[in-house]
Amino acid sequence: MIKVKVPATTANMGPGFDSLGMALNLYNEIEIEEVDYDIPIGDNLIYKTLAKVLNMYSYKYRGFRIKVSKCNIPICRGLGSSASCIVAGVVAANKIIGNKLSLDEIINMSTQIEGHPDNVVPAIIGGMVISIENENKVTYSKINLPKNLKFAVMIPEFEVRTQDARNVLPNRYLNKDCIFNISRVAMLVNALNNGELDKIRLSVQDKIHQPYRKNLIKNIDYIFDKSHKLGSKGEFISGSGSTVISIIDNNEELFVTKMKEYLKELDGNWNIKLLKPDLEGAKAI
Amino acid sequence: MIKVKVPATTANMGPGFDSLGMALNLYNEIEIEEVDYDIPIGDNLIYKTLAKVLNMYSYKYRGFRIKVSKCNIPICRGLGSSASCIVAGVVAANKIIGNKLSLDEIINMSTQIEGHPDNVVPAIIGGMVISIENENKVTYSKINLPKNLKFAVMIPEFEVRTQDARNVLPNRYLNKDCIFNISRVAMLVNALNNGELDKIRLSVQDKIHQPYRKNLIKNIDYIFDKSHKLGSKGEFISGSGSTVISIIDNNEELFVTKMKEYLKELDGNWNIKLLKPDLEGAKAI
Repeated sequence: MIKVKVPATTANMGPGFDSLGMALNLYNEIEIEEVDYDIPIGDNLIYKTLAKVLNMYSYKYRGFRIKVSKCNIPICRGLGSSASCIVAGVVAANKIIGNKLSLDEIINMSTQIEGHPDNVVPAIIGGMVISIENENKVTYSKINLPKNLKFAVMIPEFEVRTQDARNVLPNRYLNKDCIFNISRVAMLVNALNNGELDKIRLSVQDKIHQPYRKNLIKNIDYIFDKSHKLGSKGEFISGSGSTVISIIDNNEELFVTKMKEYLKELDGNWNIKLLKPDLEGAKAI
Repeated sequence: MIKVKVPATTANMGPGFDSLGMALNLYNEIEIEEVDYDIPIGDNLIYKTLAKVLNMYSYKYRGFRIKVSKCNIPICRGLGSSASCIVAGVVAANKIIGNKLSLDEIINMSTQIEGHPDNVVPAIIGGMVISIENENKVTYSKINLPKNLKFAVMIPEFEVRTQDARNVLPNRYLNKDCIFNISRVAMLVNALNNGELDKIRLSVQDKIHQPYRKNLIKNIDYIFDKSHKLGSKGEFISGSGSTVISIIDNNEELFVTKMKEYLKELDGNWNIKLLKPDLEGAKAI
């Protein structure tokens, strides 16, 4: 039996639409056991991924029993749940075929299956990562994060489907909105590298996706405002939502307590988790 | 008499349109002497800037004799010539009024006069900088550059006027082109911080300004190609042109020799200079 541990991930992170992603210390654990009878693959994304990779390497099998033994990553909330399934499938398959895949192969294969590298790369290698897919090859660069960074991850009961979140975006952007995000993402990456946390609030701003997606997340303006008042360094929609995240560097317990009280007043049955970046990524354990 | 030394600057640097700028070790030196007779200000940008700041601080004067004693920064070539005049004027004025201005005041004042922070901030503080103007206040973040970075700066005889270079740009960009630059500028900033020079070629790509401005710079495609073949890490248009710059980390003499030979074959009477980042910025000397 193989056991794989995969972190949740957040993507976009303000100005870094389709480019930035980060692993969080919230994990699913998946147990995969080869069995000598057929099990229909169905719609199980872990199974489909596993089968795809095993078939690619002509590994003969009858079936697999897959059990998500720890299921902490919520579905359709912008925390990389489907990326985690794909990464689990690829990592498990690699273990089964005797670790034949290089890290780059694991990354490229997972990206091809997922379609985008921004969640899968941090899910595989951990940390906060910039990923670019170019001619079917992923190039990534890991950001040197400040030590004390914490993330208050606020997860509502309602879901946002990625496709719905894509549909609300325009096809074109004004010159100035485009420049707005270019400057912010450049400063966000540099401010993190330099530990200049006071520049995060300015650099986490975005004109490309969040203004359009806010309507899909009820009360988001109030939550952002409250977060700011409680001393966070900045807020953003995680992935395409529905989760929203506050960046915090100190007094995190107080922040969470106060925010929890506030969220209770709002519709949506919000849950709040205090998380840190995961720095290791997916592992066969 | 006051003497001010100001570096040339390059801006945009590939994906960082209106956001990235860097000072280069190519300098103008300006001598400013107060005289007791009237000198008409005319169109001299240094004088106009000087007068503006002095008037703001109610400093009484008759006139100034201004001499550009070393004039190395070419005009209308995308190397921050007008930013250098403005910065020289503000820095000299500050010296005259007894250093009353803080660094932030020098930066904000220079940016207000120039209109954009991307050249003036590196001209003032040196290095490679991300600058954002927000509500009349400039926020900047300095990039931690790799040690060995050199720049082959290729300056043609012909000029490109900034306004012409602005006029060829579209008002709107496709979603995917916008994302393209967001991902590249994020990776460029991070790759520089990490010293990952092999990621520069991918990250220096741009879809926002260079594809439209190429037509204003004859032979640019050939020069970029040649630069790549000679082993550069990437190429970009400096500011809005006409200068183009190659990023080099080793064998720079060979690069320059070969490129010089190549440029001779082309129209434009190209000149090539091997430069490094200036790390100190403008100084009263």
